[in-house]
Amino acid sequence: MRKVVRTIGVDVGGTAIKLGLVQGTRVLKQQTLSTKRFSSSPKRLEGGLIHAIRSLIDEAGGKVSAVGIGIPGLVIYPEGIVQTCANLPGWDRVPLRARLQRRLGLPVLVDNDVNLMTLAEWRIGAGRGVKNLVCMTLGTGVGGGFVINGVLYRSRLGPSAEIGHVAVGEAGPRCSCGGRACLERYVGNRAILASVRSRIAEGVPSKIPELAGYQLNRITPEMIDEACVRGDRLARQTWEEAGRKIGLVLSKVVNLLSPDRIVIGGGLAKAGHWLFDPIRETVRARAMRQVAGVPIVPAKLGSSAGLIGAALLAGDAK
Amino acid sequence: MRKVVRTIGVDVGGTAIKLGLVQGTRVLKQQTLSTKRFSSSPKRLEGGLIHAIRSLIDEAGGKVSAVGIGIPGLVIYPEGIVQTCANLPGWDRVPLRARLQRRLGLPVLVDNDVNLMTLAEWRIGAGRGVKNLVCMTLGTGVGGGFVINGVLYRSRLGPSAEIGHVAVGEAGPRCSCGGRACLERYVGNRAILASVRSRIAEGVPSKIPELAGYQLNRITPEMIDEACVRGDRLARQTWEEAGRKIGLVLSKVVNLLSPDRIVIGGGLAKAGHWLFDPIRETVRARAMRQVAGVPIVPAKLGSSAGLIGAALLAGDAK
Repeated sequence: MRKVVRTIGVDVGGTAIKLGLVQGTRVLKQQTLSTKRFSSSPKRLEGGLIHAIRSLIDEAGGKVSAVGIGIPGLVIYPEGIVQTCANLPGWDRVPLRARLQRRLGLPVLVDNDVNLMTLAEWRIGAGRGVKNLVCMTLGTGVGGGFVINGVLYRSRLGPSAEIGHVAVGEAGPRCSCGGRACLERYVGNRAILASVRSRIAEGVPSKIPELAGYQLNRITPEMIDEACVRGDRLARQTWEEAGRKIGLVLSKVVNLLSPDRIVIGGGLAKAGHWLFDPIRETVRARAMRQVAGVPIVPAKLGSSAGLIGAALLAGDAK
Repeated sequence: MRKVVRTIGVDVGGTAIKLGLVQGTRVLKQQTLSTKRFSSSPKRLEGGLIHAIRSLIDEAGGKVSAVGIGIPGLVIYPEGIVQTCANLPGWDRVPLRARLQRRLGLPVLVDNDVNLMTLAEWRIGAGRGVKNLVCMTLGTGVGGGFVINGVLYRSRLGPSAEIGHVAVGEAGPRCSCGGRACLERYVGNRAILASVRSRIAEGVPSKIPELAGYQLNRITPEMIDEACVRGDRLARQTWEEAGRKIGLVLSKVVNLLSPDRIVIGGGLAKAGHWLFDPIRETVRARAMRQVAGVPIVPAKLGSSAGLIGAALLAGDAK
């Protein structure tokens, strides 16, 4: 009889921590915590994770083989040392894997959250079956993950596949990463919303303000999508310009790696063809002709990709 | 007693074809042919290679285990199908490996020339001992090679590590690859010399014309280097601007792959610190701070890197 393997996947996000008990690729139980409650320090988050993981293990009758954790920051793998965390204070070379392993008495693996989304999309999602995959996530941050020669790519220093920090042009606004003109500064959630608000404030006609109840600080990406459907020019231009910038950066990635497929997920990717069309057109126009036809497809696993990827990673633990 | 393995490495360049009989990493015999004699068609080049390889095998007393060949074009590996060749006409999906193997009766491996330079620098040159390496060559073309997770990276479609075809900015001149604003269009041999000539023609004072006997079409990169040493401002600016553009593109590569080291070779790299300093400064200023300190070093193996890489590749043949 084949042994039933259950793992726990944890996806630590800037606003929510998702935990799931996973068997194979099926999520048996899922739980969500507010990150805010634990974000004051790494120690506090560690305590919260221990508590939540233990109760999931109890619910599973103790039959959990390992735990995988995705962190929105730079992680040294396989050591599981968190170098920095973009949206959480105090994370400075925290040996999270060793600490949790000691306290849980279970194998624990810790990796970057976008890496784990990439792992999930590659194993069971939109990136299935290819040898070289580029995965991208469009949200508050713009992240990336690579599968190269059938292996999830990780570097010695932590950063890898930082598509959001590839410069679009020669000059441009400073970025918190240390660079300038980074893609994230143009197409991250904040940048997109700020640009829409400022154009509306300039008097550009649009249906977006109405959708936001005339409160510009309430505008969401979903409202831009809705306005696109209603034929709004500003909304369509917004995704066109974002798509063009994303396409410019992906053209560079495509010339460097010639991946078999590109998978794009994250909240902003919900814009669908309004965003994907200009991305594909730009890559076709700007990448080398031999590779310019690379398929660019939406992610399949939605917002639980990170959790599933963490559980799949745990499945690899020895 | 350990068996002595001898292989033949061949580096097909735009102007010269270099062949070498190699034992371990030592070049026992070397021979150079003019590419022009054979460049009219793939068939003619094939005939020339067969002839030259056979006579090297004879000189070696028949003791050659395999042949490795580097081609300045897109090569499907391991099939050894040459998709296109930048400077040679008629190369359109030529199954060079299969053809040569049949006629020589020996294992033959065919790869892109910059990939083989990368292999050589990685195994016995300036890239020794690292797991993730970026190699770059600055000459007529601007090429690249990656070692990722201890394996030379090759894509399914042929192009890989095409650093010369990463766009510097959003807009820029058309490139023969299908893209725009490619690094090669700014820092390839031709672009550098054209820029120097046009500035001199504009009346920018410089010592370069004197070094070229006042014949602007005789200017070489070496004369620019010599002028740098003599304090020439135009010459120094030329390498500074080229270094800045190279640094901008390498910053992108560094953020995507976080390599352990970057090795730069090719004719233009002889400019030394005049070129390497602005490259390093730009990477330090523009890459993510965690990876901006990546060592950027000159290649070690000089112009025989391609030949040695081809021979090393042959050593891997089964």
